[in-house]
Amino acid sequence: MEKINIQEKFSLFDETWTPKIIAESNGQLVKIAKGEGKLVWHSHENEDELFIVFKGKLTLLLRDGAVTLHPGELFVVKKGLEHCPVAEEETHFMMIEPASTAHTGAVVSEQTVSVDNQTHI
Amino acid sequence: MEKINIQEKFSLFDETWTPKIIAESNGQLVKIAKGEGKLVWHSHENEDELFIVFKGKLTLLLRDGAVTLHPGELFVVKKGLEHCPVAEEETHFMMIEPASTAHTGAVVSEQTVSVDNQTHI
Repeated sequence: MEKINIQEKFSLFDETWTPKIIAESNGQLVKIAKGEGKLVWHSHENEDELFIVFKGKLTLLLRDGAVTLHPGELFVVKKGLEHCPVAEEETHFMMIEPASTAHTGAVVSEQTVSVDNQTHI
Repeated sequence: MEKINIQEKFSLFDETWTPKIIAESNGQLVKIAKGEGKLVWHSHENEDELFIVFKGKLTLLLRDGAVTLHPGELFVVKKGLEHCPVAEEETHFMMIEPASTAHTGAVVSEQTVSVDNQTHI
């Protein structure tokens, strides 16, 4: 494989809450996404979801509070934990999760991008 | 869990080629390390190893060439691929790999830090 420049990959798309796959490792996909506004409440029953923020500010609302991630901060949403991502400004972040992970868990909304429709860039 | 500030974690240690565990997700460990000089040639027979560089310059020598990673660049060393990490200057990088991954594969050198001796910070 080739090395991947993460910023360069962010420059390739504008959609928000639309994960793009940039690498695979041990059956897990490395995805990047832009966020602005609010996604939906959901959980992943069988998968942990690792977040790293590169630009902006990503708040993960949790049922018992919230975590706000700035650039260079990392958080793991453990399997089963309900969360709702919110970004007040344009935010760039990475997710690392098993290939099986559904975008918005068992919840299907207009924002949901099925695993089959998540493109490699 | 708490959110993790990656730079703050780098400030907690000075050793080189000594992975520190900062998070776990889906049975994989998120580790950070500093590099300066050269590690040893090795491979991981059963595990892919994901690298992201945060500071400096990490060269992964491969038997058929080399990949040099700058800050913000990512590379996955696929299982079985022989590699030797080299850093000409102080370099900070992250690795994400299964908990089972031996530091220098089947090779044991003075630099090897066994999985049991890799500390959580």
